[in-house]
Amino acid sequence: MEEIQEELNRRRPGQSKVSTPRDESDTVEIYSGIFEGKTTGTPIMMMVFNKSQMSRDYDAVKNLFRPGHADFTYFSKYGIRDHRGGGGRSSARETIGRVCAGAIAKKILARSGIEIKAYVTQVGPHKADKRDLSVIEENIIRTCDLDAAVKMEEYILEAKEAGDSVGAIVEVVVSGVPVGVGEPVFDRLNAKLAHAILSIPAVKGIEFGSGFEAALMRGSEHNDEVTKYGFLSNNAGGTLGGMASSQDIVFRFVVKPASSITVPKKKGWISTGMKRLS
Amino acid sequence: MEEIQEELNRRRPGQSKVSTPRDESDTVEIYSGIFEGKTTGTPIMMMVFNKSQMSRDYDAVKNLFRPGHADFTYFSKYGIRDHRGGGGRSSARETIGRVCAGAIAKKILARSGIEIKAYVTQVGPHKADKRDLSVIEENIIRTCDLDAAVKMEEYILEAKEAGDSVGAIVEVVVSGVPVGVGEPVFDRLNAKLAHAILSIPAVKGIEFGSGFEAALMRGSEHNDEVTKYGFLSNNAGGTLGGMASSQDIVFRFVVKPASSITVPKKKGWISTGMKRLS
Amino acid sequence: MEEIQEELNRRRPGQSKVSTPRDESDTVEIYSGIFEGKTTGTPIMMMVFNKSQMSRDYDAVKNLFRPGHADFTYFSKYGIRDHRGGGGRSSARETIGRVCAGAIAKKILARSGIEIKAYVTQVGPHKADKRDLSVIEENIIRTCDLDAAVKMEEYILEAKEAGDSVGAIVEVVVSGVPVGVGEPVFDRLNAKLAHAILSIPAVKGIEFGSGFEAALMRGSEHNDEVTKYGFLSNNAGGTLGGMASSQDIVFRFVVKPASSITVPKKKGWISTGMKRLS
Amino acid sequence: MEEIQEELNRRRPGQSKVSTPRDESDTVEIYSGIFEGKTTGTPIMMMVFNKSQMSRDYDAVKNLFRPGHADFTYFSKYGIRDHRGGGGRSSARETIGRVCAGAIAKKILARSGIEIKAYVTQVGPHKADKRDLSVIEENIIRTCDLDAAVKMEEYILEAKEAGDSVGAIVEVVVSGVPVGVGEPVFDRLNAKLAHAILSIPAVKGIEFGSGFEAALMRGSEHNDEVTKYGFLSNNAGGTLGGMASSQDIVFRFVVKPASSITVPKKKGWISTGMKRLS
Repeated sequence: MEEIQEELNRRRPGQSKVSTPRDESDTVEIYSGIFEGKTTGTPIMMMVFNKSQMSRDYDAVKNLFRPGHADFTYFSKYGIRDHRGGGGRSSARETIGRVCAGAIAKKILARSGIEIKAYVTQVGPHKADKRDLSVIEENIIRTCDLDAAVKMEEYILEAKEAGDSVGAIVEVVVSGVPVGVGEPVFDRLNAKLAHAILSIPAVKGIEFGSGFEAALMRGSEHNDEVTKYGFLSNNAGGTLGGMASSQDIVFRFVVKPASSITVPKKKGWISTGMKRLS
Repeated sequence: MEEIQEELNRRRPGQSKVSTPRDESDTVEIYSGIFEGKTTGTPIMMMVFNKSQMSRDYDAVKNLFRPGHADFTYFSKYGIRDHRGGGGRSSARETIGRVCAGAIAKKILARSGIEIKAYVTQVGPHKADKRDLSVIEENIIRTCDLDAAVKMEEYILEAKEAGDSVGAIVEVVVSGVPVGVGEPVFDRLNAKLAHAILSIPAVKGIEFGSGFEAALMRGSEHNDEVTKYGFLSNNAGGTLGGMASSQDIVFRFVVKPASSITVPKKKGWISTGMKRLS
Repeated sequence: MEEIQEELNRRRPGQSKVSTPRDESDTVEIYSGIFEGKTTGTPIMMMVFNKSQMSRDYDAVKNLFRPGHADFTYFSKYGIRDHRGGGGRSSARETIGRVCAGAIAKKILARSGIEIKAYVTQVGPHKADKRDLSVIEENIIRTCDLDAAVKMEEYILEAKEAGDSVGAIVEVVVSGVPVGVGEPVFDRLNAKLAHAILSIPAVKGIEFGSGFEAALMRGSEHNDEVTKYGFLSNNAGGTLGGMASSQDIVFRFVVKPASSITVPKKKGWISTGMKRLS
Repeated sequence: MEEIQEELNRRRPGQSKVSTPRDESDTVEIYSGIFEGKTTGTPIMMMVFNKSQMSRDYDAVKNLFRPGHADFTYFSKYGIRDHRGGGGRSSARETIGRVCAGAIAKKILARSGIEIKAYVTQVGPHKADKRDLSVIEENIIRTCDLDAAVKMEEYILEAKEAGDSVGAIVEVVVSGVPVGVGEPVFDRLNAKLAHAILSIPAVKGIEFGSGFEAALMRGSEHNDEVTKYGFLSNNAGGTLGGMASSQDIVFRFVVKPASSITVPKKKGWISTGMKRLS
């Protein structure tokens, strides 16, 4: 439970000046599946109650469809609206469940020598030039370049003061995946990972290895040469034919700027940043 | 059957000087599910026999793991190798099935007013500046900009003469999707589409709407304003909270340069472009 | 919530002298999916806490594998044992979740005119001769024949006094199912219903329509004749080719006598009704 | 391929005087998944063309809904009718695919020491008194009692001469299943097996171990005692809590008399055994 809580604390908004000001104190409780500190095979049910978000926080948006939010699509699909918390499942709080489950998955994968590292590589125009994974937990941006971290933080605070939000790119490296993980044709490893990552709120794209840069490359550049010492490059991002190749799985995904802002978009935009639907 | 065949003919390699030189004449036959020209509800079985590819074409690669190919991962996973056709399911010929099924899906979607357009927007460094969808079938590149088409063709032929291959970006626009298509949380429309697209051989990335550019934008720019005339922009690429928003679904994906090349990658690379695994 | 609670109360042990003596007061709470009395499309989470079963009730069986119970198989499969409540998921308390979900399903089906009736037709050697569905809720056995109810009750009490348990047969009639429900081949309606019913603890068999009696019949008897007034019989039990035929879906299932008994099986059997595994 | 063909030959109608008179010569061809006599991991596609059934055989039933057949439900569901072969998927010929796949499954299971035996235990009123599994392949009924086989055969031939059909019960014994196979709650081994067996055309019921007899038993009789020598009985039919218990999995299923008959059911029934729908 402590390990799960630790991951939840890393996720929690309000932990620093760069994140959303909502102070969500999320505490996990386990209801089933664990007996005397061990899993029993029974599904593990974890519960994190929402203590800080009062329904009245959202009363202002009760009759509004906020731009960039899911208010409009949820209402269109279900014909009913629970305006508390932006529809529930479309709220970023939804990721609490993923963090809890992920904390357990991480422990299981670690036993097979599989390790997952994720870090910010771009915030607005500021890119990480280095890949120093040792500093990720040392800066509040969780980037892999301390110099870039300073600029990223300034950029975020500036936007925040203006009532605005910023976009970012995150890179993920998974090491230790055995050769052959992934299925031919429809369930290629890339396809399943893309499915998972694109299901996270606000993620708008994913690329593996050289990614979109591959459009500029030739086959002779992109093909990763194999020698007796192993692969000499990793343009493929760790898969061949949709299966893990024994190289690190490397991918990046882009997170759009948060929709919840207070700044007007342009002249005529109402100041709450929302608009009543006809 | 004619409509399916027409789509197959569009896919077929060997139809022009810019594509792979293999001349694959693919003819579809329907074995079940159709009675007197109509579907009966029974699964439709379609068969396209491989007429032109003789096993001996691949005898040269029998004991080689070609870089960028799935030879290595398939062999590692299954411990057996059918070297004819690169393992079968990892061959690009696999997409024949998708084209056949897609031709039927297209007819069904058309009845609901849903239309899918796909076209090349970048080949190597050459980007389409226009989005003239009326010219797509007029040029062999199937791009949306005839000026760019000339440069793209030159670029491809140049690489081809050098025994090399090129990368490209394809854009897809799906219009007419009703509001609400897609599921909350794990099966968001973006996630399902990413799963599908990333399962196509050689695709290494996907982005929706503004895609990776969103990293550079602020929330006030990226949020698509809604007025009584509808949305004023489409940075989201047609979804809100993972569901279709009634706007066009817009995404792009990158195709890495084909792995099957004859050029050496660099000094010391053996000229067949393949390498025997230790 | 009241309707769900009502169904839970019908399930609850301890409500009469014929059922298990455990007094389980089960109260349902709804945590998500309902807003102002209506479903919102969000998954409905219901919680029924186990208030009466104290862990110590099971301390006696901590190191024992009880005959007829799942203790042995769960321990063999998972290598760990949470002896409180017989392993959790193998306890008959597991059916609480089915009752809660079923109460909602019942409401939804009712809107399409589909009604489900279930009643006991046999307890030990005592069979219901009548099918008077109006008396089901009037007798504690929930059988469809008040005369049989008296004998069944006597039979149960007699076994109970002897520390023993009894078997029974339940009949289910589903009316109003539209023609065509069910899928060809692998997901025939009978197959799906059998899957569902056989997943209930202690159920050991299911039969549709004439069921096992069909072995004694000829085709000319078993075939249900159709006239302009509809079907003249229902030997098929409401399906043809695995799909609903518009007739009532009729099936019966057998429930083995409860494993939790206090009577020794025979000389030498230890009096707790349990046995330590070597 | 020979092993698959052998199983197909056992299934084939027309092989003896007791079976349906249609002479179906079914020959299997393998199209994919096998290379030099071994599976490659690629899906195995097998094809058995229907050589003997000409469409004209069914012209007589083109506008008729045959009692006991799926004609009515398929037409109601799909709104179209391919009258050749009774709708295709509802024909008993559909089981050819199961036999082919089953032949392969049998080989794989045999490697884990799992063996499946199935035999007829009842035809009409004639029951097998013995369980002599060594004689199953020696008699055309494939029953486990040669004395009963004589009576069963007479009974079938008598019905056949009268243009009628008979019902039967089949018993299955699966040995060598490891402890723990099956999942808690919804996918209990019994539930999955029932799903599979009830998906076979004409099967109307299934029972495990003591089956419906369990209604007559008390817990003290039904509970299978465990000693240091193992289980002393198998009333449970090889599962405990829905998982394999290491005992033989034992179940029986009933097959209704074939619907395709030529005898009139009763006065007024038209002689073809079919009836035109309104």
